[in-house]
Amino acid sequence: MNKQLLFVKRPVGEADASTWSLVSNPIPEIKEGEILIRQHYISLDPAMRGWMNNVRSYIAPMEIGSVMRAGSVGEVIDSKNHPKFKVGDFVSGNGGVQQYTVSDGKGYYQVDPKLAPLPTYIGTLGMPGMTAYFGILEVGKIKEGDIVVVSGAAGAVGSIVGQIAKIKGCTVIGIAGGADKCKYIVEELGFDAAIDYKNEDVKSRLKEECPKGLDVYFDNVGGEILNIALGRLRMHARVVICGAISQYNNTTAVKGPSNYLSLLVNRASMQGMVVFDWADRYGEAAAQMGKWMAEQKLKSKEAVYDGIANFPETYTRLFSGEKLGKLVLKVIEE
Amino acid sequence: MNKQLLFVKRPVGEADASTWSLVSNPIPEIKEGEILIRQHYISLDPAMRGWMNNVRSYIAPMEIGSVMRAGSVGEVIDSKNHPKFKVGDFVSGNGGVQQYTVSDGKGYYQVDPKLAPLPTYIGTLGMPGMTAYFGILEVGKIKEGDIVVVSGAAGAVGSIVGQIAKIKGCTVIGIAGGADKCKYIVEELGFDAAIDYKNEDVKSRLKEECPKGLDVYFDNVGGEILNIALGRLRMHARVVICGAISQYNNTTAVKGPSNYLSLLVNRASMQGMVVFDWADRYGEAAAQMGKWMAEQKLKSKEAVYDGIANFPETYTRLFSGEKLGKLVLKVIEE
Repeated sequence: MNKQLLFVKRPVGEADASTWSLVSNPIPEIKEGEILIRQHYISLDPAMRGWMNNVRSYIAPMEIGSVMRAGSVGEVIDSKNHPKFKVGDFVSGNGGVQQYTVSDGKGYYQVDPKLAPLPTYIGTLGMPGMTAYFGILEVGKIKEGDIVVVSGAAGAVGSIVGQIAKIKGCTVIGIAGGADKCKYIVEELGFDAAIDYKNEDVKSRLKEECPKGLDVYFDNVGGEILNIALGRLRMHARVVICGAISQYNNTTAVKGPSNYLSLLVNRASMQGMVVFDWADRYGEAAAQMGKWMAEQKLKSKEAVYDGIANFPETYTRLFSGEKLGKLVLKVIEE
Repeated sequence: MNKQLLFVKRPVGEADASTWSLVSNPIPEIKEGEILIRQHYISLDPAMRGWMNNVRSYIAPMEIGSVMRAGSVGEVIDSKNHPKFKVGDFVSGNGGVQQYTVSDGKGYYQVDPKLAPLPTYIGTLGMPGMTAYFGILEVGKIKEGDIVVVSGAAGAVGSIVGQIAKIKGCTVIGIAGGADKCKYIVEELGFDAAIDYKNEDVKSRLKEECPKGLDVYFDNVGGEILNIALGRLRMHARVVICGAISQYNNTTAVKGPSNYLSLLVNRASMQGMVVFDWADRYGEAAAQMGKWMAEQKLKSKEAVYDGIANFPETYTRLFSGEKLGKLVLKVIEE
């Protein structure tokens, strides 16, 4: 049987257990040109909350009754003359929160479990890693000596952003929630400094850590932290808008950054990004990041939880922050 | 005697008559290498409100007791061997709100009253024109066919922004206050459409005028209009932050644009500008705009008021909107 998590109710504010329903259906049949994938891991991402809203965005909203959308990695276990993938191949794509998925291969690419553990392919070598890579290099346009600040710094995207900035010779300050995460990004990942937004005054600490201001702010959180960072821009600074996790569960309007006129004073820019725009360069990024990982310059950490039935509980960790690194759920049952 | 308007009190909220004090002093003596300028016109700009605040910005705050800062145009009536300017030259620079000013020539450039009326040199051929030119071309990066929206559209900067965009083959929608201004920008300046923010619902009207969204939004006003415009961005749209007149008199925090995540959804950017950064290209812009004016493609309008004593009353027109085009005060007494 194929356990599947259906999206059954659009949440108002935080999503809870009533948002989804776990069902069991027969493993689907495949048609000519299709593959059947047995999924091992699915990716949990803050962006999921946005997909649940019935609003125009960078991707169509999820439909009620559909399988919960999610990136995933798994093994091809059946193929009817698929031109690209054969039985035994490991592939990553958007398989959704279910144990088996059928695909014509669109949006899938092959991965090699001998080069990296499977969860890495939906983390550092998957969408979060691609987001970090193109976001900090192409949108943030970092150069040696830049002072880079990243929020959500212990998360899937932020942790890679900061490490890439270090590799490129920047000074990197991470903002994260809690002493453990702050310790992790400085001691394990080599960030120059960390600010614990749960226990420290971000405004005064940021002033302390970048007395001359910042050149690049990579934002994953929005809200007051974005506002504080805008208050510390240097001339020609770049603000990368990657996400706004602090605002995703709002039932009232998103908090707009009242310090946005700092963009004028400092001739700075604020630019939004969606990783899909770089799809034709994912290979290049994966090769570069794989090389950095092999050289021990780039560390990848996944917080792996087990069992498709635990999806709702695991999902809440995205917003409570109770996890370290990329949040992953194992859905395969041995 | 030299009538001078001194800045004597930092305002909280709107500046009023108590902000300034009109004094009369002897016409100053000049030293070797200096010129004495008899000023004809001074420029009134929304940016003046920002200069009065004691905060870090793109220019030093004005000091209490100093002559009110202002751009100006006038005639050189004395010179002690100035290397560049001689008696009889007309020059423009930052002479302040006074009838006579002494300068070493720094920041001044010569203008020709035979080519254009003097007030034009502090309007379309001065800072507002330069701001419009570099803002829409270099920051907004308009190209033929773009849908361009500009706020403060009947003002000194906005009216030029819209006309340049029309010259470049864009569709231009202006947002202005009142039926007269709306009629002016469409019928006199050739904008494709106007939205009267004082009498119309900007959100629904903007949707009506740009059903497919906008490519460039040039913002002079901030506040709710900025927010509405952000809600209508097309893919890769550019937002130029030139000013925020709706927020300059705030006694509470500036209103941040809650729709800023539209930047993410639409891979759009929002960039601040200060015209000084293009100082080395002012000549190029003035030549181009002068040519357009001679060809009747670009119209320049100044609202000229008379008498240095009327500065406080004239200044309030910047924010009440009771003027059309560039606000100018004649300070010379015949």
